Amino acid sequence: MSATKSYAAPTATSPLAPFELERRAVGPHDVLIEILFCGVCHSDVHQVRDEWGGSRFPMVPGHEIVGRVRQVGAHVTKFREGDLAGVGCMVDTCRTCPNCAQGLEQYCDTHISFTYNSTEQDGQTITYGGYSKQVVVAENYVLHVSDKLDLAGVAPLLCAGITTYSPLRRWDAGPGTRVGVVGLGGLGHMAVKLAAAMGAEVTVLSTSASKEADAKALGAHKFVVTTDKAALGQVQNYFDLIINTVAVAIDLNPYMMLLRLDGTMVMVGLPPEAPQVQVFPLVGKRRRLAGSHIGGIAETQEMLDFCAQHNITSDVEVIPMDYINEAYERLVKSDVKYRFVIDLATL
Amino acid sequence: MSATKSYAAPTATSPLAPFELERRAVGPHDVLIEILFCGVCHSDVHQVRDEWGGSRFPMVPGHEIVGRVRQVGAHVTKFREGDLAGVGCMVDTCRTCPNCAQGLEQYCDTHISFTYNSTEQDGQTITYGGYSKQVVVAENYVLHVSDKLDLAGVAPLLCAGITTYSPLRRWDAGPGTRVGVVGLGGLGHMAVKLAAAMGAEVTVLSTSASKEADAKALGAHKFVVTTDKAALGQVQNYFDLIINTVAVAIDLNPYMMLLRLDGTMVMVGLPPEAPQVQVFPLVGKRRRLAGSHIGGIAETQEMLDFCAQHNITSDVEVIPMDYINEAYERLVKSDVKYRFVIDLATL
Repeated sequence: MSATKSYAAPTATSPLAPFELERRAVGPHDVLIEILFCGVCHSDVHQVRDEWGGSRFPMVPGHEIVGRVRQVGAHVTKFREGDLAGVGCMVDTCRTCPNCAQGLEQYCDTHISFTYNSTEQDGQTITYGGYSKQVVVAENYVLHVSDKLDLAGVAPLLCAGITTYSPLRRWDAGPGTRVGVVGLGGLGHMAVKLAAAMGAEVTVLSTSASKEADAKALGAHKFVVTTDKAALGQVQNYFDLIINTVAVAIDLNPYMMLLRLDGTMVMVGLPPEAPQVQVFPLVGKRRRLAGSHIGGIAETQEMLDFCAQHNITSDVEVIPMDYINEAYERLVKSDVKYRFVIDLATL
Repeated sequence: MSATKSYAAPTATSPLAPFELERRAVGPHDVLIEILFCGVCHSDVHQVRDEWGGSRFPMVPGHEIVGRVRQVGAHVTKFREGDLAGVGCMVDTCRTCPNCAQGLEQYCDTHISFTYNSTEQDGQTITYGGYSKQVVVAENYVLHVSDKLDLAGVAPLLCAGITTYSPLRRWDAGPGTRVGVVGLGGLGHMAVKLAAAMGAEVTVLSTSASKEADAKALGAHKFVVTTDKAALGQVQNYFDLIINTVAVAIDLNPYMMLLRLDGTMVMVGLPPEAPQVQVFPLVGKRRRLAGSHIGGIAETQEMLDFCAQHNITSDVEVIPMDYINEAYERLVKSDVKYRFVIDLATL
């Protein structure tokens, strides 16, 4: 066991503050990682504020973790001391159900041990996330990180990156496909970069015309202001795939009409309220509304390798640990380009 | 032009009553069909009562038409006088858009001429449906009907049959797949028969335990009473495909949880109200909510041939034309097994 400096939310209504927790002793299959950077995800805010229900306090958020391996267990084969390493949203799963067996651990039928606000596979030991100086994780759930990329910009790939990469792959984004991206935040800006790197035609769908230059700088080919009815009319029946990254309640139906025959809108944000979905737009063009949840461990590694190959990182604003409460306030106002990343050296 | 006895709804609030309309002269590519039977679809009631908006009156409903060809145009090649013939929900489409070009006329991007409550391709001439002694339709939109099946039972195949056949095919129902059917009415009972004939394992999901014997007689392998929480719990993460035939507002979310990874619930009924769809069940297992709209002309012929091969017809209650208003009252109470079919000899 090792005492570890962290930041925790004591309750759903109090600010995050310094907290000391115990990490488990490094087991034979574990690696101990010194955390260097941790991204700040919108779901951190949802969970800290208990907007999804069932939050466990004190909570140490953070599931976009990069750092350096400082100790490895006796049977660890994938990592050595000194390696760069990443940890995303999961630190363990059952490993035996059909989904785990085929590398889709994110859809484990039994029990996903999320990186924080969850329990280990024993169902009892609380998990604590990356707003912390170090973490101990089973090597199977740890990723290799390239030393060619800016490490702060890599951190958000572990959630924002894989959450958008996985549906882009699953729904075959690539040359000849038209991908729409709703919401140009942490997830959305990654969706644009990744879809463009895959060779798809990428359109950002936004309520604010002011984002056009940024969208195109990120790699978008087109930009549509969704409050402009004429512009929206020009992309009716247009997209093969829309990645909806908005994590708050919005009217989905106008976006559904932008899908062509057999097109799919994939929800990757998690609005707490259930949106109303009109059935006629679904039936009229055999459209689909789907969800997608991060990615499996192998796919996350594939995404990190893809990003290293294409020189893709997240655009980040690096912050000190004690700025976290202000960062949350700014995050819910979408006042960040595009991801806050905590520099754990400041803790 | 020929004067044709029909039944029409004069307004959204008055009962259907005798009405005389003019059918167009038989053009070079047209066939004139003496209508023998016409099925009564839930969407007839929705449109007669203007529950979807935009209804045109007087309205002659009916899009499950079977009859005998009595006259063919000079250039007609597919039909001869005396042939049995069927007409479904469409009597024409643009024929040139990409969807029409690939035999997906039901998703025509330009203008579908529905069989009634719609317009011909000129955008002006009102279409009138099958509650009528005869109809004139372009041969490309007319289907061949086997003389081996009970003709009254064939009529509902033209809508209820193809509406369930198409998504079962599209989503690969067959040996090794588990199909759930929600709603055991006109569409639902066809979904059960067709999915079972395709070799899928079929489960009827119903609020009423009393329907179990009927469901199994239709070919269902399993029956789950959805108000029984324990029974419902046993089919969580179970189905590859759920065909939801319910045309009124129900809570979709408990059904979404029954889909396994990558499973799809396909809406084929058209509830006027937009259901609330929780995002977590979509994301948690990459589930999809989709819609499907009847089928193309070639696929409708394929379905009719499949039914002839497997000796499948709809279970029907044949009624005289002047019973139609009582039939509507019974239909909205689900008091029919499983489809009313009008015997046009009674008009």
